[in-house]
This record gives sequence, structure tokens and C-alpha cells, in this order.
Amino acid sequence: RAVMESSWAGCRRTSGGGAATSKQPTPNERYSPVPGTDKPVEIIDIKGIEDIGYVQQDSIVSDLPGSLGNTRCRHGLYFQDGQRRVDYVLTYPVKKPGSSRSRRHTSLLTDNAFARSLRRARGPAPAPGPRPSPEDPEAGSPGHGMDCHEDDKRSRREEFEGHLTDMGLELEKDEDTKTPGVGFVKIHAPWNILCREAEFMKLKMPTKKINTFIHKVTEPLHPNVEENRTQSLKHLSYPFSREKQHLFDLSDRDSFFDSKTRSSIVFEVLKRTKCTKAKYSMGKLMKFLMYEEWASYSVFYKYQPISLIRKYFGEKIGLYFAWLGVYTQMLIPASLVGVIVFLYGCVTVDDDIPSMEICDVRKNFTMCPLCDRVCSYWNLSSACATARASHLFDNPATVFFSIFMALWAAMFMEHWKRRQMRLNYEWDLTGFEEEEDHPRAEYEFRVLQKTLKKEHKSQKAEKEKLTCKDRFPAYMTNIVMMLLMIGVTFAIVFGVILYRISTKAALHMSSNPTTRSNVRLTVKATAAIINLVVILILDEVYGAVARWLTVLEVPKTDGSFEERLIFKTFILKFVNAFTPIIYIAFFRGRLGGRPGSYLYVFESYRMEECASGGCLMELCIQLSITMLGKQLIQNNLFEIGVPKLKKLIRYIKSKRASFQEEEREKRLQRYETDYFLEPYAGLTPEYMEMIIQFGFVTLFVASFPLAPLFALLNNIIEIRLDAKKFVAELRRPVAARAKDIGIWYNILRGVAKVAVIVNAFVISFTSDFIPRLVYQYMYSPDGSMHGFVNHTLSYFNVSHFQNGTQPIEPLYLGYQVEICRYKDYREPPWSSTPYEISKEFWTVLAVRLAFVIVFQNVVMWMSDIVDWLIPDIPKDISLQIHKEKILMVDLFMKEEQGKLHVLDSLVSAAAKEHGGRNSHSPLARSRSIPHTYSNNY
Amino acid sequence: RAVMESSWAGCRRTSGGGAATSKQPTPNERYSPVPGTDKPVEIIDIKGIEDIGYVQQDSIVSDLPGSLGNTRCRHGLYFQDGQRRVDYVLTYPVKKPGSSRSRRHTSLLTDNAFARSLRRARGPAPAPGPRPSPEDPEAGSPGHGMDCHEDDKRSRREEFEGHLTDMGLELEKDEDTKTPGVGFVKIHAPWNILCREAEFMKLKMPTKKINTFIHKVTEPLHPNVEENRTQSLKHLSYPFSREKQHLFDLSDRDSFFDSKTRSSIVFEVLKRTKCTKAKYSMGKLMKFLMYEEWASYSVFYKYQPISLIRKYFGEKIGLYFAWLGVYTQMLIPASLVGVIVFLYGCVTVDDDIPSMEICDVRKNFTMCPLCDRVCSYWNLSSACATARASHLFDNPATVFFSIFMALWAAMFMEHWKRRQMRLNYEWDLTGFEEEEDHPRAEYEFRVLQKTLKKEHKSQKAEKEKLTCKDRFPAYMTNIVMMLLMIGVTFAIVFGVILYRISTKAALHMSSNPTTRSNVRLTVKATAAIINLVVILILDEVYGAVARWLTVLEVPKTDGSFEERLIFKTFILKFVNAFTPIIYIAFFRGRLGGRPGSYLYVFESYRMEECASGGCLMELCIQLSITMLGKQLIQNNLFEIGVPKLKKLIRYIKSKRASFQEEEREKRLQRYETDYFLEPYAGLTPEYMEMIIQFGFVTLFVASFPLAPLFALLNNIIEIRLDAKKFVAELRRPVAARAKDIGIWYNILRGVAKVAVIVNAFVISFTSDFIPRLVYQYMYSPDGSMHGFVNHTLSYFNVSHFQNGTQPIEPLYLGYQVEICRYKDYREPPWSSTPYEISKEFWTVLAVRLAFVIVFQNVVMWMSDIVDWLIPDIPKDISLQIHKEKILMVDLFMKEEQGKLHVLDSLVSAAAKEHGGRNSHSPLARSRSIPHTYSNNY
Repeated sequence: RAVMESSWAGCRRTSGGGAATSKQPTPNERYSPVPGTDKPVEIIDIKGIEDIGYVQQDSIVSDLPGSLGNTRCRHGLYFQDGQRRVDYVLTYPVKKPGSSRSRRHTSLLTDNAFARSLRRARGPAPAPGPRPSPEDPEAGSPGHGMDCHEDDKRSRREEFEGHLTDMGLELEKDEDTKTPGVGFVKIHAPWNILCREAEFMKLKMPTKKINTFIHKVTEPLHPNVEENRTQSLKHLSYPFSREKQHLFDLSDRDSFFDSKTRSSIVFEVLKRTKCTKAKYSMGKLMKFLMYEEWASYSVFYKYQPISLIRKYFGEKIGLYFAWLGVYTQMLIPASLVGVIVFLYGCVTVDDDIPSMEICDVRKNFTMCPLCDRVCSYWNLSSACATARASHLFDNPATVFFSIFMALWAAMFMEHWKRRQMRLNYEWDLTGFEEEEDHPRAEYEFRVLQKTLKKEHKSQKAEKEKLTCKDRFPAYMTNIVMMLLMIGVTFAIVFGVILYRISTKAALHMSSNPTTRSNVRLTVKATAAIINLVVILILDEVYGAVARWLTVLEVPKTDGSFEERLIFKTFILKFVNAFTPIIYIAFFRGRLGGRPGSYLYVFESYRMEECASGGCLMELCIQLSITMLGKQLIQNNLFEIGVPKLKKLIRYIKSKRASFQEEEREKRLQRYETDYFLEPYAGLTPEYMEMIIQFGFVTLFVASFPLAPLFALLNNIIEIRLDAKKFVAELRRPVAARAKDIGIWYNILRGVAKVAVIVNAFVISFTSDFIPRLVYQYMYSPDGSMHGFVNHTLSYFNVSHFQNGTQPIEPLYLGYQVEICRYKDYREPPWSSTPYEISKEFWTVLAVRLAFVIVFQNVVMWMSDIVDWLIPDIPKDISLQIHKEKILMVDLFMKEEQGKLHVLDSLVSAAAKEHGGRNSHSPLARSRSIPHTYSNNY
Repeated sequence: RAVMESSWAGCRRTSGGGAATSKQPTPNERYSPVPGTDKPVEIIDIKGIEDIGYVQQDSIVSDLPGSLGNTRCRHGLYFQDGQRRVDYVLTYPVKKPGSSRSRRHTSLLTDNAFARSLRRARGPAPAPGPRPSPEDPEAGSPGHGMDCHEDDKRSRREEFEGHLTDMGLELEKDEDTKTPGVGFVKIHAPWNILCREAEFMKLKMPTKKINTFIHKVTEPLHPNVEENRTQSLKHLSYPFSREKQHLFDLSDRDSFFDSKTRSSIVFEVLKRTKCTKAKYSMGKLMKFLMYEEWASYSVFYKYQPISLIRKYFGEKIGLYFAWLGVYTQMLIPASLVGVIVFLYGCVTVDDDIPSMEICDVRKNFTMCPLCDRVCSYWNLSSACATARASHLFDNPATVFFSIFMALWAAMFMEHWKRRQMRLNYEWDLTGFEEEEDHPRAEYEFRVLQKTLKKEHKSQKAEKEKLTCKDRFPAYMTNIVMMLLMIGVTFAIVFGVILYRISTKAALHMSSNPTTRSNVRLTVKATAAIINLVVILILDEVYGAVARWLTVLEVPKTDGSFEERLIFKTFILKFVNAFTPIIYIAFFRGRLGGRPGSYLYVFESYRMEECASGGCLMELCIQLSITMLGKQLIQNNLFEIGVPKLKKLIRYIKSKRASFQEEEREKRLQRYETDYFLEPYAGLTPEYMEMIIQFGFVTLFVASFPLAPLFALLNNIIEIRLDAKKFVAELRRPVAARAKDIGIWYNILRGVAKVAVIVNAFVISFTSDFIPRLVYQYMYSPDGSMHGFVNHTLSYFNVSHFQNGTQPIEPLYLGYQVEICRYKDYREPPWSSTPYEISKEFWTVLAVRLAFVIVFQNVVMWMSDIVDWLIPDIPKDISLQIHKEKILMVDLFMKEEQGKLHVLDSLVSAAAKEHGGRNSHSPLARSRSIPHTYSNNY
């Protein structure tokens, strides 16, 4: 059983109480226990996997490891009476006198004296520094007035527990555990509470079984979980209602609501009960199955057992893994096509006329020097290798591929919408509406502050809202900080550029010829690594900044907090990851000026130029280094290493404690051992990682067709890695219900939209596709590509060099150079307007821009058509929903006819027996209705 | 009471029956009438306007015209017993021997022998020509075997009526009416049927009243309908459930379900009952209020009484008028800004340097002739007026205005979404899900045909579906026909161009100088009128073609039929309306070639050129003629004239009949008089008209900033016109439930998206905005616009004219012309490449394309941000929903606690009295629960 950390912050009351360890008689003793069936715990837990009551139970029990049937486990899952199930566990810190660690802990947990609403387990980190509250002047000074606090807290706990028992929940305290400093309150929800809450939550519960479609073909791909055998039995579900209990199969009340449902019902009650903050826990035995069939690399080729994941972790996490699965699956065709495009480039590299011309030594294009003074003239044929390599990524197939990938993104969205709809149907969420959360503690605190201030002034006691005016400073800080952070990213990218320029210049000046020949490689490699490291570090910094900014904003609800946090984090991380790439794709080599009039940074460094094969090759290198490095380091180091390390630290810390380790290990309740796991911190990092990856896959796919393949390989590992993390490394999270993936879907759509534009620009501006096209159809004398290289190179008269920038070794190539060439469309020195931008430049630019317009609009409309052609709800699901509705109407009709029949016969019988006693007939009717209605109370 | 035309097509059974006029004893006699309260009918009807039971009724009754309280009305609204209300009326043709009119009518109504499903009132027109069905060989031959049919139909009717009484409905036949040839079946739904169906339909019914926000400020703008006083009382609603009847105020059962709800409940039952096609009717007294406060031009400045419209016509029509209202309201700011932009143009016309230069006689640009031979050289200053007029529509403000209008469109969408959400909340539709329709008769017929064919071959009796293969011919026909129709549109536009060219040439050659001077005007006016007439005619043709194509497709459900029909009609009508405009905006004047190398059509007619002020002026003229003409003619002629004419024809026809007119007028039941109204044909034409108008408002707004104003003026009339039509001219339509405006929203979004692109192109290509910008910042010697006109005109050496194209009168201007000018960016005759496209052309083109990209993306993202910033659900509504939910939970909790309390006291009392009689306690409990549960049966 996983236990979530909890603190008891609550109602402001300061009455004293008994000693910390004494168990007080709570009001729950007056509640009688539900007469539970006497089955071993494990059966009930395992039964949670299937829809209860319809599959043979014995076969599952025998599959289980034998060790799980002992009574110790049973003790941990039930109350002391062995009958009432533990549906939820709350923990709280118990003060040990003299233990400084526990004291510090306590003070940290108390300082939110106003925290009346429940903060979810995945909630925010504690606000930076304890915030003193007006009622609680000691809160800011730890070590002072501790006992007073301890008493205060206990009294609040008692009040809260009183509220809980008033709500009908049954509690059992367990402060005398083997874990020092932690007390546990086990909660049991009796049957009538479960029914009531299920009705409020409009939980859809199964009524009677009907058959759905079984896909026999994909059998070997499915994991070996019972789920698959039972999933073929889809139950007709109906929102639970106490008055309609006859519709549901209540033969086994203990298992009608599975453990996930029970705990989320209790969680619902806890949320409603004012003055707490709580965590919960539930069964863990599914874990064994999850280990075997999900959280293992050996099953990487199988589908995920999504229903099992959902049953154990709830819909929200289930949806994440389902989404990850769909994404990974969709990457398969994308990487296939990507590999084919790459292979096409490999095959056609020898037929590419421009690279042939570059490699042709006889053509002998004398190029202008790449840097001032130290560099000399060079032959274009020395760039042969780069030109050939560029062709791999810069051929007509990449145009096709980026159109394909834009449509792929649209298909992916549609596919996911359908899958989500199918899951909603299978998980009975079709009618469920996500409701607004309770306000967050920080928000209520701010509102209270404001109200108090107003009260002070105007003696009015109205409850205030936070207006735009109140929030204005926070909003301004947000905007300024966001811009500042983006500015920092830009500055760092610029810094790396400067590093590259200056290092290159320095190394060029070196007298060592080996150094000089390795200049390019050394500079590129170090710069890319610096970039990567900066991205990784800033990623962490930006995560913290975004959280801080969101806390400043004081959003009203947890949902709003999460959305704002995600949005900010996304913006910052996205800018961080893609700024260097965007620089290389669109700016590098375009700002350098021309020979004789170069652009200088700090008046000494010339801006860098691209290699002769175009900037596409460099873009490609940068992309692959960033993408691979980010994935490898973030996955391996951060996702595997850090949690392991944290666990080790916790373990060592607990070892330092006074009692014997072995003893503890043996006797600990399940919820006590799970207390040592890492708390669940939300799905945001997981989604964020995948969205950034989605960006790499779609945004610059025109320049790097292998991106989908790398993403695919990463994700196959990622799924199992996340699975392991969720099963083994983290405490079991609250089973949150969710219909969709929320803001992430919008972000995905946004990325896909941006991708279309970015790809249009990459193809038309970064690649040589358009200049080739223009040359072939407008300037080529014979309609072939021969002469293209010559056409793209302008002429420069070396006598026009600015003073001091001429090469030191003008005879480096062995001959006197009078005219050198450079890559640009400019007038030759002998024209009437020398070095002016030429007509060819404008022609090519117009065609490039026209291509962007055509590409963007064609792809956009094609995506819209894909969106429109594929229905959001799969046909079989909509048919099924329709059928279910008809069945339900039939059921109601039959029921009613039955009632009428019984009623008729009863009335006539009554008339015969006691002629004239009409006043009693309504009672006689209600008695005869086959209905469990009156049994609930 | 409006009555809808109906025909009884049904189960295929051919047993005989009694005479048409004899009233048969139906099974409904065994049902006892609901003990209705004895109020006059009108109160109940009027009460339907408000949410029943909470407002004072007497004040409303006194507001009513006195004539409405007589017993004749009561007779028409109730069964003969005067107690059971008529909730729905079915009509059917009764055969009169010897009456040819009725015979024809009968045969038409019979030929869909397979029509098992219900065709809604707004359903499609009868398929072109009676389709013979295999079982019904006589159907195709009218006048033969009529009596046999009559018997068959009656027996089917009887079976259907039997089904209805089995379902619990109560019927009363009325064949002996004063309307010859029409029989009526009045239907009453007893209370328990209403309850059962309301539960199936998950109708949300009011529970208890809570206050909502009243907008006092807008009071004078609201129509004087009771609605407003009562709308401030929003009732907490909950899906109706028989078990939870205690939640609802059932003190007056007769009025708990209002007449609209009652009729739609009956309609629901009719839909479920196999073998019919039906129409219905309901109260009409609201009509008086609607006339006064809605369907009158004198209240044009008021909001519409949307709730009243919805109560009378149902949600679907309510949504249309709400949408029309929002659209019209949103047009107010748009037309304001449009007028300001236009005025800005008027004010700045004298400061516009290019038009000053054109008007300056001293500049003396000698232009090349506009046509071969008969035209001569002309002075640019003669185009002064056009140039000045062009400035009104072609100034920098229009760029701002088209950005504004794109954002306006996005705002409009958002505003409508919010309004829709608010209406959904107010109308208690928040949980309602539109379900799939029953299959259409035509579809089932095709499926049956296929099944029979298969059966014949393989002896299998499985039910088939229509596969893609079955539909392939229809799909192919669709595509081919659609392309053909679009081709026809293009051909007609081309024809009009030819007309213009040839007429111009012919008139130019005329010797009459008056004719020649009026050439321009004459040709333009006639061409625009021809265009308009063609558009209007083709609009009607395309409507019919689209319907025919959709019938060919055999869509499965009515919903699918409607969507496909709308989509096709939209495409055709859109192309039809905008092709001539698109030609003028983007192609006219660009295909003409250059002097010395003109493009000729049919080797004799030169393509037309634009006037010297740019094509924008002509676009503007064409737009205003099309838009105004379409609106005026379609509104006045088609929407007012044609229905009036049809009504007249019906009236005259009925006068010809044998009975006395005055007699009929007096004694006719309300549903009988309404029989003479035009049937309701769906909202498609209304929406279509508005969407095309939306196209005019958004698509070319850059060239015609007054479009929103014209649209606004039209719509103010349009709302009241449609209102009149719905209230007075049409039979009352089925009150269809709908959550949204369906496919129209998507079409609106599509138009708004296209509008962004079209406007980007209009600004950059049709207007002179970009060339001016380029001149000012790249070519102007002093940074001003001086010299712009000279810069845009190229030079032509008149000696380079092709033989036979020189002007006949070269000395027309009074001097010898050697070099003439023409509007294009080409090299002068003295350059090395004479008449080649110049560098300026490419520069301007590149800037134009860049502008398109920037404009499109900026506007697109701004729209997205607007979309994202404005929440779809208004804040107050989401708060209200949240509050209601809390209230509902409270209510349940209190109820439960009350029950527990009563139970406790009862149990203890029982224990005291009859110590040990535990087995009876559940019954004792159920007796004590304050619940009307057992009273329903």
C-alpha cells in the first residue's frame, strides 16, 4: 500500500489537548461495522483488475505468489476488527521531544496556518520561506512555542476527524507504529456512504454484461494480463443511483466498488471536509502484475495494459500512458518514411549535379577567404565532402517528407482524439464533467488578507475576490521575468556564437598546422556541447522560475495553477531548446555581409558563415546533438539516477534513526514501507519532455528526417522507464479522474501549427531547393542543373578589400587571385552598380516567399481536411453508445410493465380481500415493487 | 394551434377496414382522463412562457385580449371531454370519391411504402418522381387501385394507432371536420407517460428558484415580454426522474411540462413507434405576444425575446435567431469602424500625392491605347476622378481595417460560443447529448433491396449495410457533378468577360460620339446586372442540384442528410457568388500582356485592363452591386413575395372547393386553419443567406469597408422579416432540441480562415499599398511619394506596335506620340533587354509575398490568442453551475438526514409498541419517507 505524505493544517483553533501518543476515543465507535465477507484481501484486490462479479475468481487467486496470503497483509489492509477495509490512509507527523529533525519538519508543515483547502499530493512545493500569518505570530520563528503548536495541530486534527465521522466515515488511529514521528489514520467508508458519494459523483457503474468486439488478430501483441480476457466483456453502465440499485449487480457489495473507486470516493469526502490536506493509499498487489507485464523492458513490443494502469493509478495517469503509447505507435510509420527519405538521399548522392560540380577539381572556383587576414583564398572543391553530405538531407524527398510529417501530425491528433473517446467510453467517463476545484489555500489566504484590510477600513465584512488590480503586480512581474528569461536565452546563444567566432579566429592564428586543420571540428563540437549543457542547466532553472512566477500569481484553483505553470514552463523550455537551432536555420550566414563590407561584432570579429553546402548540414548536426544529448542525459541521469539517489538518501537517513532496521523491515505495515518512497510530483515533467521531443520531430523535420526514428527508439525505452518509476520509485498517486489530457492537447496543436510554418521556411530559405528550382526553370540554358554552382556564386574583385583585411598569404593556392567568388546573388564588380543585390536575388526571394505561402496554405488545408474527414468518435463506439441507450430504455420499459402488472394483480386482490380499504393501496403498491430502495437506510 | 401536414405511411399490411368517416372505438377508452384543473386554456399556454409555478398568473391573464377566453378555443385545445389536453395532432388525407385533387395527393403520399422511420417536418422535398417499390407495384401508377390503397392505408393507421395506445398515449379521432379530405387524430399524453419519457430524454426540469443576475442597465432594450421579469428567476434544474419527484414542484401537474415539452415528448414516442411519418401541433396564443414584441419592424432596436422564441419554436430555431441576433449586434462595431475608415479615405483624398499627380495636367503622361486600332492615346489626367475615388477604398486605413475585421471574426466566433453556452445553461441543455437519428426511409429501402438481392443469391437473411462499394457510383456522380457545376460557374464568368470585351469593342467602333463616351458606364452596368441575374438564377439551380445529389448519396440519417446537403449547397453557392469577384480582384488586368504583345481571346478580342486607379475600384463596384442586389432581391422577392403568392394560390384553390368560405372561417378549429399555411422547410436557406453575407463582410472587406454597414442594415430588417415568416407564414415546426448550430459553425470558421488569406492577397496584390511602400522606402529620392506614378509606368516605343494594331487616330491628343506609357514594371525600350520584366517587378513581388506571409500569420496567431484568451464558458455561468451543484448536494444530504432521523424515531417507536417485530421495519421506513414515489403507478 502506498502512503502519501500528509500534513494536517486546518481550522484556526487553539484549544489544548492530550499527549501525542495517547489514543483518544473518537466518535466513530458508535458506527457499527459493515458485515464484510471473509475473503482474503488479495482476491478483492485482484478482482479490482476486472469488472467485478463476472469472471471466475479462483483461477486468479492461484496465479498469485503464495506469500501474499498471510495474515500480516490482511492486518495492514483491514481495521483491527479484520472486517472493515482500509480505503484511505492519512499520515501526520508526531512530535518526538528532543528530535530536532522532527521539530523542523513540524514547523514547516504548520506554517500554512490558513490552509483550509486540501492541497493535492502533486501540489506545489512549499512557498519560499514560511509566511507569517496575522493570527499566528509564532509561526515564523521555529523552535519557539513548539508544544503550543503541537497541541493546536492535534486539536485541529481532532476537529477534522470529528467532521469526517460526521460525514459517516469510520476511522482507526494508529500512532504507535514502528515508523517514528509518523501517525496514521486509517479510513473506512461504509456501504451507504459509498452509495451516496457515488451518486453525487455520477459514477457510471456496470449493470449487466454485453459483448463487445474482440480483436483476435492482435492477440500476441497484448500483454498477458487478465484484463484482456475480460475486456471483451464490456458492461452496460449507468450512473449509479441509490433508487436504481436494482439495475446493478450488488450480490457482492464488498467488491462492487473497486479499491480505486473506494479511495477516490473517500478522497471526494476529504476534499469536501474543510480544514485539511491529506494523502491516501490503496492496494498494491496489482503491482506484481504491472511489474511483469508493463514495467519491464522485455515486453517493449507489447501494447500497454492501459486498463490495468487506469485501475491502479486512475484515469489521469492512464491517459498519459495511453497517449504515450499512441504517440510511440504513430512514430513507427514516421520513422519508416524518414529512413526511406534518408536512404533516397544516400542513393541519389552520386547523381546530384551541384555536388558533382563542387567536387569537380577542373571547375576550379576560387573562393574568397572565410576570415580576415589569417585565412586565404580556397578552392570550392575542398568542400566536396560537406556538399555530398548535405545532399543526404537536402533533396526533393525532404520536401515531400515535411508535407508528410505535417499531415502525420494532423493524423496523430485525430488518432489520439479517437483513442481518447474510446477510452472515455470504456472507462465510463462519457457523461463525466470535470468540475471546478476548490480554491487553493494561498488564494483563500490572500482573499482573507484583503478582506481583513477592507474590514479595517470600511467595517464591511463582505468576502472579496482578487481583482485584476490586486493581481497586476504579479502579472507585471510575470511578463517582465518571462521576457528577461527569454532574453537570457538569447544572450547565451549569442555568447556561444561569440565563443565560436573568437575561438575560430584564435585557433586560425595558431602556428600549429594540426590545430588549424582541426579548427572546424573542434569549434563545432565544443560549441554544440556548450549549447547542450546550457540547455540542460537552463531547463532546470526555468522550471523553478516558472513555478515561482505561478506561485506569485496566486491562481484560484489547483487546475488553474497547473495550467499556468505548464504554459510558462512550456514557453521557457521551448525557447530554450529551439533558439540555437532557429539561429542556425535562419540567421547564420545571412548576416555576414559581403566581401569588402563584412559585418563585424565588437568591431573585430566577423560574423560566421555557413559551409559551402548550405547551412542545412550544420542545422542537422546541431539538431541531432541537442536531441540525442537531451534525451540520453535527461532520461538516464535525471529520470533514473536522481530518484535512485534520493531513495538511497532517505534510506540512509532512516537507518540513522534509533530503532533496529531489520525489525522494522519485517514488522512494518505496507503503508509504512511505502512512506519511504519518493512522492509523486505530477505528470508535467513527463508530458513536457515528450512535447519538446514532438517539437524536434515536427519542427525541423525538413532538415533532419531521422528525427522520428531517434524519437521512436527513445520512447520505446521511455514507456517502460516511466512505468518502472511509477510502479516502484514513487508513492502511489491520488487516482484523479480526467477525460482528456487537458492543456497538453492544445500545446500539441500549437506545436503542429508552428511546425508547418517553420518547415516551410526551412525548405525555402535554409535548403537549396528553391534556388535550384529557379535556376532550372528560369536561368539554365539547357534546363538541366549544370552551371548551378556558378550561378549562385557572385564575383569579387580582390582589389576592393578593405585595408587590413586582405589575406596574409595571397598565394596560398599557388597562383595570383584577381577575382574571388562568394555565395550570394550580387552584381559583379564590372556592372554599373557593383555589389548591389541583383535581380536574381529578388527573383529567388519572390519564389521562396511564394513557396512558403503555397506550402503553408496547402498543408494547413490538408490538415483541416484530415481533421474533418476523420470522425472524432469511432464509428463502433458511437454505434455501441446508441445500442446501450436502446437497451437501457428497454430495461426501464420492462421493469415498468412488470410493476404495473404486479400492481394490477395486487389491487384486485386487495379489493377482493378487504373491499373498500382504498386508503391503504398506495402502501400495498410500494410493498410490491421489486426494489431495494428502502433497504439503504 | 399550428398543424403540420402529415401522411400515414407505414407497416406493409393489406387487410381491409371500415368506412373512412366512422369513428371506431379505440383502446384508449380504458384509460381514465387525468383530472385536469379547470382553468381556461390561455393561462396554461401563457404560463408556458415563464417557468411555471413561480410567478403570479392573474396579472398575465388580464393582459390578454378578451376574445381568447371563449369555449370554442377550449374545444380545439382539449379532447371532447374537455379535460384531456391535445398535445399533438396528426393529420391524414381522407379519400373523397370523385375528387381528383385528393386522389393525386393521396398517391403522392403513399409512394414511400417503405417509410418506416419518421421523416421530420423540415425533411426533404419528395424525391423527384415516385419511385416504384417492389412490394407496391401500383404505387407508380396514380388513378389505379386507389380504393385498395385507401383500405391498406387505413389498416396501417389502425395498427399504428394501436401501437400508440399500447405505448400509453390517448387518442381522439376527428374525421368529420369542415376541411374536406383531411382527418385529424388528436393525441393526449397522460401524466405517467410524460414522466417516463421525460426521464428517458433526461429533460432537466426546474426544482426550486434561485436568483440570477439581472442586467438593469439594458432594461429599455429588452422587449416587453413577461420573460424578462421572470428570467431573473433561474430555477435550479435537475434531470427529471420519477424516483426524485420530491425535488420538483408538482403542485400543478397540468402545467409542470409546458406545451412545447409535452409535444416533444409525444413526438419522441411517435418516433419510437414504428410505421409512421407524422406532424404535430401545439398552442398558438403566444403568437399574439410574438407579433407584438418580435415580429414587428417597430421593435427593431430591441433585443429579441429569445426564451419566448425557444418556448414556442424549440431550441433549434431559438438558436438560429439568437445567432442572428449576436451576428447583427457584432456588426454594429464593425460597421462603425468601416464608416470611420471610409470617412478617413474621404478626408485624406486631397492629401494623396499619387492621385494629385494623376490629376495634374502638367505632368502629361501619354498612355498607350486601351484597345486596338479604334482607341487612341490618352492622357492619364483624364482618369483623375477614378484615381480619387480609388483612394476612398485604397488607403492605409483599409489595411488596419482588414486586420480589425479578421480579429472581429474571431471575436464573433468566441462571443457566439459564449452566448451558446449561456443559452445551453438557461435552457437546461448542459447535460443533453444529441443522439443519432433513426435511419431514413430511403436508406432502409436501399438496405432492404440489397438484402433481398443477397438473399436471392446466398439464401442468407442477414441484414446488410451500405458499403463504400455500393455508394461508389453516387460518390462519383457527386464529384463529377460538383466539378461540372463549378465549371459552369467559371464558364458563365468567362462568358460575361467576353460579353464585356466584345460589347466594348463594338461600342468603341460606333460612330455616335455619345455612345462612345458612355461606353465604360454602359458596359460595366450591364455586365454587373448580368452577373447578378446569373448568380440569382444559378443559386436556385444549385440548391436543387445539391438536393438531388444528396438524395443520390442515400445518407443514413436525417442529420447526415442535412449536413451533406448543406455542405454541397454551400460550396456551390459560395463559388457562384464569389467567382466573378475573385476574377476581378486577382486576374483582371494581369492577363492582358503588354503593348506590342497583347493577349488575345479568340484571336480578336484583347483581354480587358483595369482603370488607371487600379482594379480595386472595379472590385468595389462589383461587390456592392452583388451584395446589395442579392440582399434586396432575395429578401424582398423571394422571402416576402413568393410565400405570399403561395398562400394566395392555396387560398384560391381552397375557395374553389365546394363548401362555403365564411362558414369554414368561423367554425374551423385552429389546427384546421393552420393547415393552409406554408410548411416549414428547415433553417438551411436562412443560414445560407447569412453565411454568404458573412462572406461578403469578411472576405473582401479590404476593398469595401462599407460592407458591414450594408449587412447591418439588411439584418435589422432580416430578423423581423424572418420572425414574421415564422410566426405568420409557416406552419409551426417541430420543436427540435439542439445544443449548437451544428455544421454552420464549422462553415463560419472556414469562411473566417479563408477571409484572412483573401484579404492578405487583396491588400498586397489588388491594392497599391505595397508598390507605394516599396517606392517610398526603396526608390523615392526624397522619401516622399512624389514620382510614384512615373515609377509605376513603363515606357513603350510606338514603333514596336504589331501591324494592324496601331491607333487609327494617332493624333487624337493633338501631337505626335513616340513613347507611350503603360502600367507595369518592365524594362524601357532602350535597355539591353527591352520590355523584359524589370528588377522592380521582382522586388515589389517579393515584398508583396512577404506581406502576405506576415499578414496571414500575424492575423492567424492573433485570432488564436483571442480564441484562447476568451474562455468558452462565461465566468458567471461556470460559477452558477458550480453553485448549483453544491446546492444539489446539500439538498440530497439534508433529505437523507431527514430520512435517517424519521427512521430512527420510527424504529424506536416500533420497538416500544410491538417489541421484536423487526421484520416489518423496512416497510415502516418506506412509509415514512416524504416521497411521492409510489403515487405514480
